[in-house]
Amino acid sequence: MTTKKIVVIGGSAAGAKAAAKARRLDEFAEITIVQKAPDLSMASCGYPYYVGGTFNDRSQLLCTPAGVVRDPVFFQKAKKITALVETEVVAIKRAEKQVVCRNLKTGEEQTLAYDKLVIAAGARANMPPIPGIKLAGVTTLLSMADTDYLRKVCDDKQVKQAVVIGGGLIGVEACEALQGSGIQVTVVEAVDQVLTFLDWDLAKLVENHIKAKGAKVLTGIGVKEFVGENGKLTGVKLADGTVLDCGVAVMAIGVRPNSDLAKEAGLTIGKFGGITVNQYMQTSDPDIYAAGDCVEIPNRITGDPAFAPMGDLANLEGRVVGENIICGASVTFPGTIHTGICKVFDYAAGSTGLSEKAAQRIGLSGYTTVVNASPDKPGFMGAKILISKLLVDKDQRVLGYQCVGLGDVSRQIATAAMAIQGKLTLEDVVNADLPYAPPFSPAIDHFITAAHVMQNKLKGRMTGMSVQEVRSKLDAGEKPFFLDGRNPNEFEEMHLGIGEHLIPLGALRSRLSDLPADKNAEIICFCKISLRGYEAECILRAHGFTNVKVMEGGIMAWPYPRKK
Amino acid sequence: MTTKKIVVIGGSAAGAKAAAKARRLDEFAEITIVQKAPDLSMASCGYPYYVGGTFNDRSQLLCTPAGVVRDPVFFQKAKKITALVETEVVAIKRAEKQVVCRNLKTGEEQTLAYDKLVIAAGARANMPPIPGIKLAGVTTLLSMADTDYLRKVCDDKQVKQAVVIGGGLIGVEACEALQGSGIQVTVVEAVDQVLTFLDWDLAKLVENHIKAKGAKVLTGIGVKEFVGENGKLTGVKLADGTVLDCGVAVMAIGVRPNSDLAKEAGLTIGKFGGITVNQYMQTSDPDIYAAGDCVEIPNRITGDPAFAPMGDLANLEGRVVGENIICGASVTFPGTIHTGICKVFDYAAGSTGLSEKAAQRIGLSGYTTVVNASPDKPGFMGAKILISKLLVDKDQRVLGYQCVGLGDVSRQIATAAMAIQGKLTLEDVVNADLPYAPPFSPAIDHFITAAHVMQNKLKGRMTGMSVQEVRSKLDAGEKPFFLDGRNPNEFEEMHLGIGEHLIPLGALRSRLSDLPADKNAEIICFCKISLRGYEAECILRAHGFTNVKVMEGGIMAWPYPRKK
Repeated sequence: MTTKKIVVIGGSAAGAKAAAKARRLDEFAEITIVQKAPDLSMASCGYPYYVGGTFNDRSQLLCTPAGVVRDPVFFQKAKKITALVETEVVAIKRAEKQVVCRNLKTGEEQTLAYDKLVIAAGARANMPPIPGIKLAGVTTLLSMADTDYLRKVCDDKQVKQAVVIGGGLIGVEACEALQGSGIQVTVVEAVDQVLTFLDWDLAKLVENHIKAKGAKVLTGIGVKEFVGENGKLTGVKLADGTVLDCGVAVMAIGVRPNSDLAKEAGLTIGKFGGITVNQYMQTSDPDIYAAGDCVEIPNRITGDPAFAPMGDLANLEGRVVGENIICGASVTFPGTIHTGICKVFDYAAGSTGLSEKAAQRIGLSGYTTVVNASPDKPGFMGAKILISKLLVDKDQRVLGYQCVGLGDVSRQIATAAMAIQGKLTLEDVVNADLPYAPPFSPAIDHFITAAHVMQNKLKGRMTGMSVQEVRSKLDAGEKPFFLDGRNPNEFEEMHLGIGEHLIPLGALRSRLSDLPADKNAEIICFCKISLRGYEAECILRAHGFTNVKVMEGGIMAWPYPRKK
Repeated sequence: MTTKKIVVIGGSAAGAKAAAKARRLDEFAEITIVQKAPDLSMASCGYPYYVGGTFNDRSQLLCTPAGVVRDPVFFQKAKKITALVETEVVAIKRAEKQVVCRNLKTGEEQTLAYDKLVIAAGARANMPPIPGIKLAGVTTLLSMADTDYLRKVCDDKQVKQAVVIGGGLIGVEACEALQGSGIQVTVVEAVDQVLTFLDWDLAKLVENHIKAKGAKVLTGIGVKEFVGENGKLTGVKLADGTVLDCGVAVMAIGVRPNSDLAKEAGLTIGKFGGITVNQYMQTSDPDIYAAGDCVEIPNRITGDPAFAPMGDLANLEGRVVGENIICGASVTFPGTIHTGICKVFDYAAGSTGLSEKAAQRIGLSGYTTVVNASPDKPGFMGAKILISKLLVDKDQRVLGYQCVGLGDVSRQIATAAMAIQGKLTLEDVVNADLPYAPPFSPAIDHFITAAHVMQNKLKGRMTGMSVQEVRSKLDAGEKPFFLDGRNPNEFEEMHLGIGEHLIPLGALRSRLSDLPADKNAEIICFCKISLRGYEAECILRAHGFTNVKVMEGGIMAWPYPRKK
């Protein structure tokens, strides 16, 4: 048996994983990682947490759980893998099955022969040619160098203001890290919401939370120019001419796949610019595999190609590649359902499957959504309210779920992600057997409650209305009868102030005469979370009111300013 | 349309839920709850947390989230439901469709007619006729009265020692509540482990944790007698004659269904003594439904009847019953997969689906288990180790999952529960798309890691050995070569002391000569979590060693005393 030669381009997540897996399956293969950066196996998703001081030992970003830095010596000793760092691959010669690489410090070139090549070249920041983008102080948060720079900014306490351009995952995480370090942050997002994996209504709640933590958020506005003096950033000029003074600006408007090498080598590239791979993570050249942020993978729900640059998928893909380069194309990677989660100060925001926006984008018809607000635990255990949005298709199959709030969002999204991957229907979810004990969930889990509300809606027992629809009615000058079913003390503490009538649920049956005389008048019921709102609807319908609706999620899902 | 008469026996979880759901579906039905206890809708799973002082406002156990106590006035006003408390049903007259009830304070009897009857009578403690069991100081933890009593015991600080009889969910929760209040607790469990929903190996880790928190745990021993003076408990005498001094003893050896009334009325009773219901939660009398702790429901995996007295199932069943009594038997309840979770001080322990013990009990053949220890988060985010056990059947379908540890067990069990309910196979789980960000999980989620280890095992790449098998070998005087693949500093901090040889993984390839000369000698590899143990196995196999194994879960799964 001849020794297999494996070359892996990229040594962060997917590349390092593919190499390590290959080693376990073949002790005698010659495995070489070629890594442009000085570091290997960086925990890049952890960068914002080091910047923000969640931990202070930088080496933890590079360590094994046992505390050993994963440097070339470690790779050699523990994995018998040669790792060439600060070395760039400059060409792939497919005909010769060679890669040409150049040492970035010495400029020296060398040629490596391969039997199987893995491209795990990652992604790079979108950096449009905005004037001033080269000023010192404009950075991304994608490398150890970026991380070191921003950590120093936080530690030095000289910079008082920062602007984060882009309100996606990294933008929001950068915002939290900098704002938490005492820097006044403004997030500037070109579209009309942060975290575009969420629908607008839930994203707006996240935005409100970011603002409540002291950061500023501007949506629907772009950046025109980076302003500076002596080569150093002093401000960010927005499209409307406003200048936001700042010493640092973090560009976080997304990433694009590093697929240039692959393209130059004639490999097939997909519609997002990522390398096209088959189910074995094999490129259009059967001896070349690819994984991680440089590839496109299937969206498991739509079947369409997707670009999903996530650390967990990179690792899983790397593992598949590691096996296939040793054992032959045999194990498969199914793709993504776009599951993601993001810490936002003490809030969390997550999504899995299709958002309503995504459903509209692909032209899905006959779907239904519902917004549910309910606690993550019993009140006596310190319940936190979660707000979620569930989407089912016309066959009542669960296709999407988003959840935001102070509570245990992680469990919610994990539960929903498995429901989607198991192709479960609403009927399966309404009576799901989930782990219940008061420290961990309410007797009826929040996800199951969302399914119950959806079922009430689909069975015609609840007519839901979104907060946006309510807002539109108000903006159009319509005057539906708003019924707030809470108690006076709750009202005193907090209320919308949209002309609502406070009729506590317990008094409703005896106060039907306080309702519109016209039984066809539009009545919109709600309460804090709209459970009592729903009960009010049931009562009113039974008493002949024909046009009763429930504002989904109640006051907790209301993203607009409240009177109190 | 004539007004439907609904009578509900029991007003805690299932009964209250059935009544409330029925009301929402029929505003004009006459609904009466007959409740033996003075309270309604008690959050009984929360009792231990009030006893232990997690919260101090007793009324929170009885309140709506808006802070209104769910008393008969609340039920009347908010739900238009008549709730007769401190009232016992003494007979069900099926032929007349009536129940006879007696006011426990006045002794007055009344007869209620029903069109549909719901039995949600709950369960009661197993109280074997142990001498002295009537002594003051012997209690259960199943009612508000029990709760008030135990809370007073904690507040008064007179009782210094307590014995909890039974190491199940309630026993462990009672132990935590009392021990946390400064009382020295001893848990006495007749079988050889606590928390019998877990397999022995994981339960032993929980037991060790309880002991580390200062409580004592005695397993494999029963109680012979409650010893007292002047009618008051002073100690618990064990089967071996030992007397444990104590001022309080909590009986927590399980519950049995309150099905006497149903039995007397001639309804079919199942093998666990619970009321038999069909998929509509309908008893053998089509006008009588039953739900909650008094019924038997199907085990969804085996199809056999199961007794699963859990608060979440009671609520879900109640909801199904509420709909069926109004709309006719139409919605179904699928049963349970025995999902459960328990807080154990700062540990948590959960299970879903079949444990290995349960698999053996039903005679399942061809299944495989694996124990996985790995972190719940990246190290830099304060990782906690979780130890889990995964069970797949011969078709590699996920049938069971248990998890214990300091970390986020709740998400783990919820994820696995949905995987089981979605009938997912190992192949589905190894590349599952779960929510990843460093505050919530490692890049490869713990559950997915367990699936990876299982796959390595099933593909013959890892030969696992359980800690029990290792212990048996040691006890039998066998001398396999134990290879601990960690670094010297880790060894210094903690090691088993079973004659292991410390060969750091990074040095293994150059130290093959330190291994047994006989390539067929048994070598058992491990490390802290046995990832390096597995890598060691791969290396040794490649170098011709034929009898290499990995101790699953490594040192973290070792439940026996360690040398250090």
